[in-house]
Amino acid sequence: MREGASEPPRQGLVYIFTGDGKGKTSAALGAVLRALGHGLRVYIAFFMKGEYPYGERNILSKLPNVTMASFGSLKFVDPANVKPEEIEQARLALAAGREAMLSGNYDLVVLDEVNLAVAWKLVELDEVVRLINDKPQNVELILTGRRADVKLVQMADLVTEMLKIKHPYDKGIKARQGIEY
Amino acid sequence: MREGASEPPRQGLVYIFTGDGKGKTSAALGAVLRALGHGLRVYIAFFMKGEYPYGERNILSKLPNVTMASFGSLKFVDPANVKPEEIEQARLALAAGREAMLSGNYDLVVLDEVNLAVAWKLVELDEVVRLINDKPQNVELILTGRRADVKLVQMADLVTEMLKIKHPYDKGIKARQGIEY
Repeated sequence: MREGASEPPRQGLVYIFTGDGKGKTSAALGAVLRALGHGLRVYIAFFMKGEYPYGERNILSKLPNVTMASFGSLKFVDPANVKPEEIEQARLALAAGREAMLSGNYDLVVLDEVNLAVAWKLVELDEVVRLINDKPQNVELILTGRRADVKLVQMADLVTEMLKIKHPYDKGIKARQGIEY
Repeated sequence: MREGASEPPRQGLVYIFTGDGKGKTSAALGAVLRALGHGLRVYIAFFMKGEYPYGERNILSKLPNVTMASFGSLKFVDPANVKPEEIEQARLALAAGREAMLSGNYDLVVLDEVNLAVAWKLVELDEVVRLINDKPQNVELILTGRRADVKLVQMADLVTEMLKIKHPYDKGIKARQGIEY
């Protein structure tokens, strides 16, 4: 429910979903669904995901109150050999997320895979720290991706590590459309 | 995308999201969103959640191809003092999930909080084992909730433990509508 005259201002928190297990982006999307159900306005910046027709985008694009922007290309980033255009795309993603966060037009901002973008030095840790420091009080912020920096973990209000106990890739089962992407 | 003439039959897997951290139900809902985006048909049985107006239900109830059923009451179950009606509700939830799974009408079935329902002996472990054994090949099954039984973990294809690194409840911040429920 949006803030009403009789309600205290929303205290927006910073959430991190990290770890090697499946469920980080899914958990962010579940939070988006919940937020939309309460009439909140959502912005999602996808880092390093390109224009792949992920199922979630099909359905989210049909819902009101959600804006998505996707950056990077379909090719997997090689962290040992990062290309200038990959850095550029990640910086654009962060800038877009920052602008959305500061615009007053959104109650929840998701930066999907930003943690890994920091770990791979596609964006500066300091820039994400600055983003968190500049977060308007009433905006919720979700950062996803493996290898969340300890500094970001310290700044966040809620951190869940998705621990991989078992994954079908280990058995050689490939990602299947519908659930995995 | 639904199974087409030229595609091999979908190999539906069993997923478990467990652990004390936030994100288990959210991850299941994210998977639901993704599945809906690909035109899959989804059934969700909520255990022990009653008729609480969770935000996700508001929005899911407006989408096509998703059926939800909610069991139990709003009151928290006291595992040391389980009431007959709580057992009855959990059994109804499992029966409904089983029927949906076997009906041929759904591609993805979510049993939300079933792990905890087993741990608290609201439903029999053997009944959930039987459900997994009877799963039609093409149906995806997601089981969420803390304290997943080791037997269920052994049977599942993908298991993620949501590990609580940090949670605002620890600082005395209450659950807020919009993101938490």
